[in-house]
Amino acid sequence: MRKHLFVLLLAAAHPAAALPTPPLSASLAKVKLTFALGADGRPTYAVAYGNRVVVNTSRLGVALQGGSGFDGPLVLAGSDVKDVDETWQPAWGEVKNIRNHYQQLTVHLRQPAAPGRRLDVVFRVFADGVGFRYEFPRQLALGNFVVSDELTEFALPADHQAFWIPGDYDSNEYLYTHSRLSAVDSAPQVKASTEIAVRDAPDAQAVATPLMLKADNGLYVNIHEAAQVNYPAMQLHVDGASHRLTARLVPDAVGNKAFLHAPSRTPWRTIIVSDKAPDILASKLILNLNEPSKIADPSWIKPMKFVGVWWEMQVGKSDWKYAESADTLDARGQLIPTGRHGANTANVKRYIDFAAQHGIAGVLVEGWNVGWEDWFGNWKENVFDFVTPYPDFNVQQISDYAKSKGVKMLMHNETSGAATNYEQHLDTAYQFMNKYGYPAVKTGYVGRIIPRGEHHDGQWMSNHYVRVAEMAAKHHVAVDMHESVRPTGLSRTYPNWMASEAGRGNEYNAFSVGSPPEHETIMPFTRFMGGPMDYTPGIFKLKNYEPTGKRQVHTTLAKQLALYVTLYSPLQMAADLPENYNEHLDAFQFIEDVPVDWDDTRILAAEPGDYLTTVRKAKGKNEWYLGSITDENARAQPVKLDFLPPGQRFEATVYADGKDADWQKNPASYQITKQVVTSKSALTLQLAPGGGAAVSFRPLPAK
Amino acid sequence: MRKHLFVLLLAAAHPAAALPTPPLSASLAKVKLTFALGADGRPTYAVAYGNRVVVNTSRLGVALQGGSGFDGPLVLAGSDVKDVDETWQPAWGEVKNIRNHYQQLTVHLRQPAAPGRRLDVVFRVFADGVGFRYEFPRQLALGNFVVSDELTEFALPADHQAFWIPGDYDSNEYLYTHSRLSAVDSAPQVKASTEIAVRDAPDAQAVATPLMLKADNGLYVNIHEAAQVNYPAMQLHVDGASHRLTARLVPDAVGNKAFLHAPSRTPWRTIIVSDKAPDILASKLILNLNEPSKIADPSWIKPMKFVGVWWEMQVGKSDWKYAESADTLDARGQLIPTGRHGANTANVKRYIDFAAQHGIAGVLVEGWNVGWEDWFGNWKENVFDFVTPYPDFNVQQISDYAKSKGVKMLMHNETSGAATNYEQHLDTAYQFMNKYGYPAVKTGYVGRIIPRGEHHDGQWMSNHYVRVAEMAAKHHVAVDMHESVRPTGLSRTYPNWMASEAGRGNEYNAFSVGSPPEHETIMPFTRFMGGPMDYTPGIFKLKNYEPTGKRQVHTTLAKQLALYVTLYSPLQMAADLPENYNEHLDAFQFIEDVPVDWDDTRILAAEPGDYLTTVRKAKGKNEWYLGSITDENARAQPVKLDFLPPGQRFEATVYADGKDADWQKNPASYQITKQVVTSKSALTLQLAPGGGAAVSFRPLPAK
Repeated sequence: MRKHLFVLLLAAAHPAAALPTPPLSASLAKVKLTFALGADGRPTYAVAYGNRVVVNTSRLGVALQGGSGFDGPLVLAGSDVKDVDETWQPAWGEVKNIRNHYQQLTVHLRQPAAPGRRLDVVFRVFADGVGFRYEFPRQLALGNFVVSDELTEFALPADHQAFWIPGDYDSNEYLYTHSRLSAVDSAPQVKASTEIAVRDAPDAQAVATPLMLKADNGLYVNIHEAAQVNYPAMQLHVDGASHRLTARLVPDAVGNKAFLHAPSRTPWRTIIVSDKAPDILASKLILNLNEPSKIADPSWIKPMKFVGVWWEMQVGKSDWKYAESADTLDARGQLIPTGRHGANTANVKRYIDFAAQHGIAGVLVEGWNVGWEDWFGNWKENVFDFVTPYPDFNVQQISDYAKSKGVKMLMHNETSGAATNYEQHLDTAYQFMNKYGYPAVKTGYVGRIIPRGEHHDGQWMSNHYVRVAEMAAKHHVAVDMHESVRPTGLSRTYPNWMASEAGRGNEYNAFSVGSPPEHETIMPFTRFMGGPMDYTPGIFKLKNYEPTGKRQVHTTLAKQLALYVTLYSPLQMAADLPENYNEHLDAFQFIEDVPVDWDDTRILAAEPGDYLTTVRKAKGKNEWYLGSITDENARAQPVKLDFLPPGQRFEATVYADGKDADWQKNPASYQITKQVVTSKSALTLQLAPGGGAAVSFRPLPAK
Repeated sequence: MRKHLFVLLLAAAHPAAALPTPPLSASLAKVKLTFALGADGRPTYAVAYGNRVVVNTSRLGVALQGGSGFDGPLVLAGSDVKDVDETWQPAWGEVKNIRNHYQQLTVHLRQPAAPGRRLDVVFRVFADGVGFRYEFPRQLALGNFVVSDELTEFALPADHQAFWIPGDYDSNEYLYTHSRLSAVDSAPQVKASTEIAVRDAPDAQAVATPLMLKADNGLYVNIHEAAQVNYPAMQLHVDGASHRLTARLVPDAVGNKAFLHAPSRTPWRTIIVSDKAPDILASKLILNLNEPSKIADPSWIKPMKFVGVWWEMQVGKSDWKYAESADTLDARGQLIPTGRHGANTANVKRYIDFAAQHGIAGVLVEGWNVGWEDWFGNWKENVFDFVTPYPDFNVQQISDYAKSKGVKMLMHNETSGAATNYEQHLDTAYQFMNKYGYPAVKTGYVGRIIPRGEHHDGQWMSNHYVRVAEMAAKHHVAVDMHESVRPTGLSRTYPNWMASEAGRGNEYNAFSVGSPPEHETIMPFTRFMGGPMDYTPGIFKLKNYEPTGKRQVHTTLAKQLALYVTLYSPLQMAADLPENYNEHLDAFQFIEDVPVDWDDTRILAAEPGDYLTTVRKAKGKNEWYLGSITDENARAQPVKLDFLPPGQRFEATVYADGKDADWQKNPASYQITKQVVTSKSALTLQLAPGGGAAVSFRPLPAK
């Protein structure tokens, strides 16, 4: 009886009577969203920016396993519009206040025939773009269900320029290709990218998001997603002829896309648009579409810089492993040390000393725990236990020493891709961090995923990352996830999930041919759209750092400094070795000074693939820091200082490329100058090929 | 340098010089094992029992992913023979002392060409059969590897009769078919067995083990495995024409069989043989091949009988679930109770009272925790959290009440197949059991496995079950696993893993057409060969127990009593409802009296599919208990009481079928008689069609 009552109530809430015919629309500023049912009854949407088309009429829909999904005709059952304008404060970030201003259109759809399932599509129209998602309301006709395909399309009006990486189920660490959409073909690159541990990109026409596009009519368009929770990552299949992009969801081990239960919802599909490239970088649309923080009091979450026993392994100076192989045993069955193990107590103390001397808050140590002799490439489940140090790593002594120096140790939990194994040890691993006072952990997923057949970017792993973030939050530990799915603004909801890698970081300059000078001008428009990246900037020894002597970092030293401003992360590494920093302590001063948490950020100049200039105001301080970078071309970057508060004098310290600097021939040439400036001043930064400039602005006493 | 030294040492241990030509052999009593390299260099074995062939020359080998496996020609690099005769005591069991007497032949094999990998085959020859396994010694040429196929064959000399169930990756809950090997075709049965939740049996010629065979020459042969750890279950593909059985390993989500790292080893492949059927049941070969207990002090592990809130759900008297569906919510969003929830505090107290009154140690309660509205069939990961009771189950009050009555509560952890979810909650779940004093848990895996694509009987799940047993041991909790892989004697190593289901239990009489009267005469020769089963005997209301009134249990009441002796488990349920027992308290006396731990066991008469009579001596007591059962045929079973100690008088209480008893027409007819007997006495038990008899022998004071 009660059950029937419930049915009636539901029916009352969504009357069956036919409603006014679409199209429906919502708009804010120049952005207009239109929803319509096609002649075939299939839902569509379109987006315009002023009188320019952003997305032409494009299909919406979700196919379910077993049929009766939302891939056929639907009827309109109602719609709602509301306006929201609110401001919120992130726990940390690029700005202190974030305005969340949008018009929301909710479209209620229903299958015209039995089982009469209902689907809502919710659009939020911002001044800088649109987000939309599918919502599956609570209903008797839809309980548990499996998404077999998402039918969302992005019908682009022309053959835009695109900055893209392959749509790989397991990696986002590719180099970006800058090409027309019609030229997308990832197969040769995927095949050649042997420096990437795990590759699985079956569709050569699929690209990853965030996808950065530039139209010939001057529009910049970025397509990504927000709040990717309990759902696989979306990739985009490119139809080169029609310029139509279609959602492709990363499958599970047996080809399903997502297991859901109504009520539930997909992530937001995001389209950020502007006729100015800097607006794309300044957009807070993705963060705004995420849920508010689940951590009521985030005061224990501390942005920080850190050094680490890490780059020395990347460049072959020392090893993660302790013995040559797991079979190199002495008569007592103990591992025989190679003498090249980086994570030994004495060496770690050296990093702690350096951090303490230079006000760097943290020290990360990789290779501290047993298992590295046999950790990679075998799809093996029980490689690490996350709590057993090598014999030469005295965890208590190191913990005590760091504490005495006022330095925090950062934990490292490499899983080698065995997420199941990590989950089995999660409680113990985080209790261990609490015991020894580790406030943050860098996790890693290098290798094919276990559960075998699952992918880094599928639904199961996406849920895993959230479970790890939640477990970490419970233990008051911050997380920096490497080889995870790329971020979608979830740091708003889980502010202890401070950073991810999930992109091609500076490390590729250590162990591969590296990334070209344009790389860091593309990354903010792509990988960073979803959230902070542990890019590991700050390499000072840019040549002759590894045995072959053939590799080099593809920037000047000054550009490495500029990256601390242009690439945002609340966990930011000073990645080079103490001995290399000691040779350039005047330049290192910028790394010492630059904050990792900000009151405000302004993108002064930006063009993907070419250049970027960003200035930020330190959190709670009247200090400003500017970073300016260029690609392989030298550039004179004019900068008006009107961001400074008027009527005040500042000392500007300019860390610039030397006159003869060149990323390839003379990367270490830099010059540091100081001058007094006000908001009326202007600077012209001379950026060398592959170069950059960093500037700190500190207030001077009034005259 | 050290590494090279190591290579030399290994080489010295296994000189390359050619060794005497095979065949090699080992034997004990009538059993003879012969090993030989075939003309093609491939290893083979054969087994004889006296002058009768058990297994003709049969291939051995293991294929590895990527090639260079042990599927090609090998050369003999040496062999060792040793004799072992020892006796050990299990923590609990059918006998107090177990003799482990065998001759071991280890054959060292090597690939003739590079990479020159080494493989050992270890044979143990017992008086009642042979066990053998593959061992992968520590070697530089073999680190991590993946088994793509095991090539083990069992070439049977003739078209034996077989008692078999389909080789299903996910279930062992099929009815047994009694046919010639040449008639094996499981497809129709698999298709028709809709009462089994998850079925995946792609090879219609594959059968599960333990496989019971009967040769026309009078030999009984049982093929199974022992110590299945870190390896998938072995099934057997039957070539009906040649009578050759070939190992088939249950694959993982993407088709691999096992991920291993040398040194490692496979489970033992077991061949138990005798010309007397009772010897098969008395064999301790499988237990002997398992490793000794990993629990140093097993004194906390207590065999026990239990009643439970369970059969009443099976027969539809009450429900596991609390509300009609997960969507049946009141205005406050709370589940609206149906009023049919079995696991409510008052009902549980009723079972506790019954247990306390009748000296039954434990009470199991299913459906106590939130999630049952939506638990099955959706391949859903987060169904249960294992610690949140329904509102009408007061865990503290029940725990206190049970304690006050001297009764132990048994926990229930159904996972719905989501092993990943269970592992995520394992710590918390077992802490919860400790907090409320639960000494044992019944686990369940009803549903498709998560990790999706994995199978109940694959390597990953096999490791999962061991992880659960280890976690339980850490918390001093005993485990009874349902829907797990079938056992292989691991209760020796993990004595807290007291029982498994992994077979077709009594419950099928509740929710399906049930199992025919012969079923319980086959089970000891098949499912029970690997270890105890939670069969849930003791149903007294054999008809009209469920709404349709059409089903019935396929035994007499007396046979239900006999099962407490013929089917061994240290965790033994009295499965029926208190109200049904209260109608036959005279018969229930046998269930009250019968122990679950024994000093000795003798199989007095046995023929698979026909009959079984077993007598056991109570642990540490001069009491004996006998069970005798038959199939659908009435039978007069003579029993000589020479197992009783001579010169003593016993009171024999005989719980026999009534004269007019018949499983189908009159199952509840029984008669209880007492008589004084000695070791010189004899009884003739009159077993009705589908009937049985139970007898207790208690010492009388000397005259």
